[in-house]
Amino acid sequence: MKILLINGPNLNTLGRRDPEIYGSRTLQEIEQATAERASEMQTELRAFQSNHEGAIIDFIQAEGPQADGVIINPGAYTHYSLAIRDALETAAKPVVEVHISNIHGREQFRRRSVIADIALGQISGFGWRGYVLALEALVGFLREKER
Amino acid sequence: MKILLINGPNLNTLGRRDPEIYGSRTLQEIEQATAERASEMQTELRAFQSNHEGAIIDFIQAEGPQADGVIINPGAYTHYSLAIRDALETAAKPVVEVHISNIHGREQFRRRSVIADIALGQISGFGWRGYVLALEALVGFLREKER
Amino acid sequence: MKILLINGPNLNTLGRRDPEIYGSRTLQEIEQATAERASEMQTELRAFQSNHEGAIIDFIQAEGPQADGVIINPGAYTHYSLAIRDALETAAKPVVEVHISNIHGREQFRRRSVIADIALGQISGFGWRGYVLALEALVGFLREKER
Amino acid sequence: MKILLINGPNLNTLGRRDPEIYGSRTLQEIEQATAERASEMQTELRAFQSNHEGAIIDFIQAEGPQADGVIINPGAYTHYSLAIRDALETAAKPVVEVHISNIHGREQFRRRSVIADIALGQISGFGWRGYVLALEALVGFLREKER
Amino acid sequence: MKILLINGPNLNTLGRRDPEIYGSRTLQEIEQATAERASEMQTELRAFQSNHEGAIIDFIQAEGPQADGVIINPGAYTHYSLAIRDALETAAKPVVEVHISNIHGREQFRRRSVIADIALGQISGFGWRGYVLALEALVGFLREKER
Amino acid sequence: MKILLINGPNLNTLGRRDPEIYGSRTLQEIEQATAERASEMQTELRAFQSNHEGAIIDFIQAEGPQADGVIINPGAYTHYSLAIRDALETAAKPVVEVHISNIHGREQFRRRSVIADIALGQISGFGWRGYVLALEALVGFLREKER
Amino acid sequence: MKILLINGPNLNTLGRRDPEIYGSRTLQEIEQATAERASEMQTELRAFQSNHEGAIIDFIQAEGPQADGVIINPGAYTHYSLAIRDALETAAKPVVEVHISNIHGREQFRRRSVIADIALGQISGFGWRGYVLALEALVGFLREKER
Amino acid sequence: MKILLINGPNLNTLGRRDPEIYGSRTLQEIEQATAERASEMQTELRAFQSNHEGAIIDFIQAEGPQADGVIINPGAYTHYSLAIRDALETAAKPVVEVHISNIHGREQFRRRSVIADIALGQISGFGWRGYVLALEALVGFLREKER
Amino acid sequence: MKILLINGPNLNTLGRRDPEIYGSRTLQEIEQATAERASEMQTELRAFQSNHEGAIIDFIQAEGPQADGVIINPGAYTHYSLAIRDALETAAKPVVEVHISNIHGREQFRRRSVIADIALGQISGFGWRGYVLALEALVGFLREKER
Amino acid sequence: MKILLINGPNLNTLGRRDPEIYGSRTLQEIEQATAERASEMQTELRAFQSNHEGAIIDFIQAEGPQADGVIINPGAYTHYSLAIRDALETAAKPVVEVHISNIHGREQFRRRSVIADIALGQISGFGWRGYVLALEALVGFLREKER
Amino acid sequence: MKILLINGPNLNTLGRRDPEIYGSRTLQEIEQATAERASEMQTELRAFQSNHEGAIIDFIQAEGPQADGVIINPGAYTHYSLAIRDALETAAKPVVEVHISNIHGREQFRRRSVIADIALGQISGFGWRGYVLALEALVGFLREKER
Amino acid sequence: MKILLINGPNLNTLGRRDPEIYGSRTLQEIEQATAERASEMQTELRAFQSNHEGAIIDFIQAEGPQADGVIINPGAYTHYSLAIRDALETAAKPVVEVHISNIHGREQFRRRSVIADIALGQISGFGWRGYVLALEALVGFLREKER
Repeated sequence: MKILLINGPNLNTLGRRDPEIYGSRTLQEIEQATAERASEMQTELRAFQSNHEGAIIDFIQAEGPQADGVIINPGAYTHYSLAIRDALETAAKPVVEVHISNIHGREQFRRRSVIADIALGQISGFGWRGYVLALEALVGFLREKER
Repeated sequence: MKILLINGPNLNTLGRRDPEIYGSRTLQEIEQATAERASEMQTELRAFQSNHEGAIIDFIQAEGPQADGVIINPGAYTHYSLAIRDALETAAKPVVEVHISNIHGREQFRRRSVIADIALGQISGFGWRGYVLALEALVGFLREKER
Repeated sequence: MKILLINGPNLNTLGRRDPEIYGSRTLQEIEQATAERASEMQTELRAFQSNHEGAIIDFIQAEGPQADGVIINPGAYTHYSLAIRDALETAAKPVVEVHISNIHGREQFRRRSVIADIALGQISGFGWRGYVLALEALVGFLREKER
Repeated sequence: MKILLINGPNLNTLGRRDPEIYGSRTLQEIEQATAERASEMQTELRAFQSNHEGAIIDFIQAEGPQADGVIINPGAYTHYSLAIRDALETAAKPVVEVHISNIHGREQFRRRSVIADIALGQISGFGWRGYVLALEALVGFLREKER
Repeated sequence: MKILLINGPNLNTLGRRDPEIYGSRTLQEIEQATAERASEMQTELRAFQSNHEGAIIDFIQAEGPQADGVIINPGAYTHYSLAIRDALETAAKPVVEVHISNIHGREQFRRRSVIADIALGQISGFGWRGYVLALEALVGFLREKER
Repeated sequence: MKILLINGPNLNTLGRRDPEIYGSRTLQEIEQATAERASEMQTELRAFQSNHEGAIIDFIQAEGPQADGVIINPGAYTHYSLAIRDALETAAKPVVEVHISNIHGREQFRRRSVIADIALGQISGFGWRGYVLALEALVGFLREKER
Repeated sequence: MKILLINGPNLNTLGRRDPEIYGSRTLQEIEQATAERASEMQTELRAFQSNHEGAIIDFIQAEGPQADGVIINPGAYTHYSLAIRDALETAAKPVVEVHISNIHGREQFRRRSVIADIALGQISGFGWRGYVLALEALVGFLREKER
Repeated sequence: MKILLINGPNLNTLGRRDPEIYGSRTLQEIEQATAERASEMQTELRAFQSNHEGAIIDFIQAEGPQADGVIINPGAYTHYSLAIRDALETAAKPVVEVHISNIHGREQFRRRSVIADIALGQISGFGWRGYVLALEALVGFLREKER
Repeated sequence: MKILLINGPNLNTLGRRDPEIYGSRTLQEIEQATAERASEMQTELRAFQSNHEGAIIDFIQAEGPQADGVIINPGAYTHYSLAIRDALETAAKPVVEVHISNIHGREQFRRRSVIADIALGQISGFGWRGYVLALEALVGFLREKER
Repeated sequence: MKILLINGPNLNTLGRRDPEIYGSRTLQEIEQATAERASEMQTELRAFQSNHEGAIIDFIQAEGPQADGVIINPGAYTHYSLAIRDALETAAKPVVEVHISNIHGREQFRRRSVIADIALGQISGFGWRGYVLALEALVGFLREKER
Repeated sequence: MKILLINGPNLNTLGRRDPEIYGSRTLQEIEQATAERASEMQTELRAFQSNHEGAIIDFIQAEGPQADGVIINPGAYTHYSLAIRDALETAAKPVVEVHISNIHGREQFRRRSVIADIALGQISGFGWRGYVLALEALVGFLREKER
Repeated sequence: MKILLINGPNLNTLGRRDPEIYGSRTLQEIEQATAERASEMQTELRAFQSNHEGAIIDFIQAEGPQADGVIINPGAYTHYSLAIRDALETAAKPVVEVHISNIHGREQFRRRSVIADIALGQISGFGWRGYVLALEALVGFLREKER
């Protein structure tokens, strides 16, 4: 089983940006923690981060066909990138949307996701743990479907 | 550690209502599965369901002070019960909001939650598994705070 | 054939509340008139009124499975009780929505019904007669389906 | 007693258009069924259909003064013809608005009626039976007023 | 000099409809009074009324080229007939919009005119006198332009 | 003279909930202070609190006929309980709406009251004192009407 | 008979401001032309202009009681001065609202008048002639009422 | 193969109205050019124009059953005629919507089409050429479906 | 202790304007009644009224620094004077907003106050008594703070 | 004559994504078909696709000056890329906007184009044929202008 | 060269009002600093402040004709004074709008300026320095135009 | 002291695009003029332009930590790039937003900036001079803070 883990713009600065909101772990540490949990579950994790909307679409197009599911934290693109939405919809693999902070409890513009209604589910507000929960949720879903 | 698990109106009919959306497990089965996971984590679970807005508030007022956190699926009250929101806010315990289906991908009126911005986080779209994920997220958060 | 006749909040005060809008008949008189017409049509009528949103949901859950259809005047809950809507939708029986006054010709907020789009039809503006018309419409529909 | 029965644009194609929504009876059959019921109630029915907004207004101006009430299904004009609304308001006779399908459960633009707030009442969702119910409601109202 | 005087739907019933709002003069009397004033000003008046949107457009197309200006009370078409607006714009003659009652002091939907922004000016609220004022305003404007 | 004093959901927790907003007095203390002032003014006070929307309506229906006026702090129901509004409107006694905090200076959703336009007046922002001011205002109004 | 003629802010610069929109006559010339027409109609005209909202209210309060009617071009205050509206409403004399240009054909914000719904009528788009037309309309209305 | 070519209000004045927007060809010339192209493609073209909404509906009802597709430029009716929309939907033939000017680049009210979402496609902004392109698109679609 | 009592535009006509809404007392009588109550409470009252927005600001700037609190009925300025709001905010003294009629139960535009969210509280709907209630509320608040 | 053919994000997956909506031809096949038609019309076609908003802008800046016109299907960027709009506006060459599916008949967010009002015209709903039609429309327009 | 420097309501209290937002310099100090910079640039500065909307208009009318440009901080009038906007537009001199704080980063109602779209430019957020920058920008613009 | 100067999409075409709006200077000339002024003020300027949203974010992440402040003209990204906003917010250096034309006086969509409320201030409408003014404002702010 192979899962894509995609992080959008500015998430490469995790650990530096507003630690009281986003926590003190770096993206690399989070990716590693998630990969370790994946390994425990006999799952391969392919991590990717970019600040470029187009690069995220390129990645989804290139890797989507070989993957079983996608975990994505689209960062600020969550709120307007219909292009990433289309790429995910075309890939036609189950998508779990993750947000480190609780986007529903912040500025008005952060509450609207153009991705959410094509996703399997959304997890927000649990810091770095959200990635691990997303992985568990996605693998659980895929295993059940396999049967 | 003690966690409240609250389910709102019509969730006592789980298993009967649109099984293709809500799954075929009954609420009792879900409560039991969640309680078993709680037990593995040395946590006590106190489950409650009501169709009465007022009864949910009474329960939060009565049980909130002795609890460490709340998992709630407010059902249709999600969208307008400012009274339940106030009860949760007064209880001042961490709250995790759960929805069985992905509310962000359904009818427009199901996308608005009046609870979400006072919650620690929200999990939606993973069926009965969402309750177990919520428990793990909440206990993880509380254990970390304890240290 | 068995029909539920449900009246929502404040409808137990019919005859006292703004008689020039709602007429001078009491709810009991209306229920009796509707029951007599039902009896002429070999149909049993089970009448219920409550001011409690939760009690209406309990009633629908308890009586819905044995009934063939529902006539409901949800009173003020018409405009926001998504919980009653869900209860009716779960019951999965044909629903006729009745209003004594013409809700489309009154205050703006009375023009919006959260029940209407799951109902078979809506009758409004004909005073107590609306209940009898609703009964005839509902029985006509059910008889035709039976064939 | 004399009642006008007016049908607006495209209702002359009843029986051909989406039978699963509008039923299989033709307009002529519906007019006849309604006329028969009228006859049983010692009432004269004057039926008219046109696709022309102006022609409907001309008819209301010509026939309104001799009539006791109006049953109208304004078709798509329901949603924007303020001119028909003005004609009905000038005629100053009780109006019952009928819709074959439940307009409150269809596309957003079909839920708004510019006629409804000057009507005595509205009946929607009962197919061809709605015309008979409208006749009974209107005659009942007029007979009571006579006394 | 030749002026068109166009009245839209239901204005042929003036004198009958809500006299306390629209006055007790008939349309014929108003047309005559306006024609007399036109005659005093050496101006020819060509009056027309129809309940048919299309007939009003036909008339504007047929008579517009020979006329020097247009006085129009579009009745309820004021609020939605973009087709009449286009006909007047194509005619490219100065237009004065008249309303018998003060449309700015009535129901919300009567305050919006789709004609007003292509008109020379608007006169509303002065009953039958509005037509005479409109004639004087239009002739005054045309005489000044001639010089 | 007899006055009803009604408090809505969560107001039984006064003294515990956000004391910097709502003050440190309990509801019992506030009810007592208001009752003492009532006694000085030869007025009887009948106090009631409930978290149940339906129970508040029952109370208004049961006690309204014997009362001369109503002081109500509807709590969160202020913003959507059209059913309580209807109960108050049916009771047809003068109503004073009280809010402990200044609802006009808080979250957007707290600025809208569905009760306010059927009330005699509204007092907000003066803490527990608002109840005493409401009592004085209501008794003053009633005494003047008596003369 | 005595008529007040009030002009609001910036109208004292008429003749200087955008002559292609507002014409080349000065306010003094317009006031004089209107006064002459008034004199022909045995009417006294009392003209006033101010850039100060408060001064216009003071004038209406001082002169309103002795006047028979008011002609007002409130300039930019048309769009927001609820205070002038209240002053005119308190004066309780018939008001005619005049605008030199056609406000319905200009920027969106110029199309809304907070005065219009308490006015007898509105004349807009006929340049300086609008004042004379307003005078004729107002005197005609007052003479008719006198009879 | 037989195609209907319908033009709505004011399009009979093409060549006269704003030539810089609508071009200098008359409707007759456009219909002829389209008919010639149709003839080259072994297709019959049946052209119709009316200023009357009702007449356009009559035409669709009369000719629709024998036609294979419809090309329509509804003129100003594009923006509000739900009645024409219903007629086209009932006809159940593929519809191509044409506009001479680019409606998406003009006044706000011209950007909304109530026809577009039941059409096969829309072509706007290419002057008289748009009709020929529409014909080619429609015939291409029909030929492909035939196979 | 010194309190400012400010009344905005048109309140100097109290007693004359719609007595059934605003009561029959003049502003002078109200100011005197309030001053007497102030005197009983060992408080000095400084009353001011103006129709001029700027004059009210000048007064707040001149008298604010020596005052302990402000009672203001901003009249129509309530709904749009952000400049008065800024003046009050700069003065940084507790403000009580008073309205004679219940602004929440009148025209839509009277329900919005740009002052309310910087005020201590708001009292509306109790006629002249509202000023005395405001005084008592404000003095009560200030005395408590002193301790 | 040289024409640019630009395709935005995800259009490189044509043939794979929802074939029932977007057809089964690949982008390469569509580009080739369009190039062949261009060649027949003695026109050179320069095709480009990118998922990167910035790369599309770079291309327009680099190639725009040598081109005679632009055909663009901006994909999801249609709905929000004001930057592409600015690039096209700066290039100052005629633009034809193409959409494979009928964007006016799909989700609400797909109906708004930020490009449309600077385009010559728009073609939507005709599948791969839309590109050929766009080419014919654009070349037709350019040829006519040349004369 | 002569420049007007206009400050609106409450700006005469600078130095006293919220120093952390508006800085600690008084208006007099700011006017002096700006005048000194003007003097260095061989420019005359004419400063004016008023809390009165009308007085600001009077000043613009009196001084505008002799001035070369205007620097204005309209204070709270920024958000609603269409009358000041009209005065500036009539004066027809280049206008620079200044705000001490960054109005785009404060309350929603402070982000809308009715002046901005007739101004040459806007400078906000740089404290007292904004006035000097505005002067340099305006003089730079005027000097360039002179050439 | 080191300042970043960032220009967004299409600004590399300055001098070519609508010179009457954007002036005739090229971006290189503007960068040079700003660098010269910076040099006079003992400040280093690091200039960057890109059409790529992602590249701008990369640049801010790479250079932000070593810089003292940022001057940015985000071009069309001003209106929707929440990703650039987040990058600037994470960099946590003072930001000055510059626009060559007065964005508040252009199309509606150009008036909204998603950057403005995290910026120190905004300067718009002064052509190339705006960059120099921004530099002076930013350096002035930083020098003052240093003390």
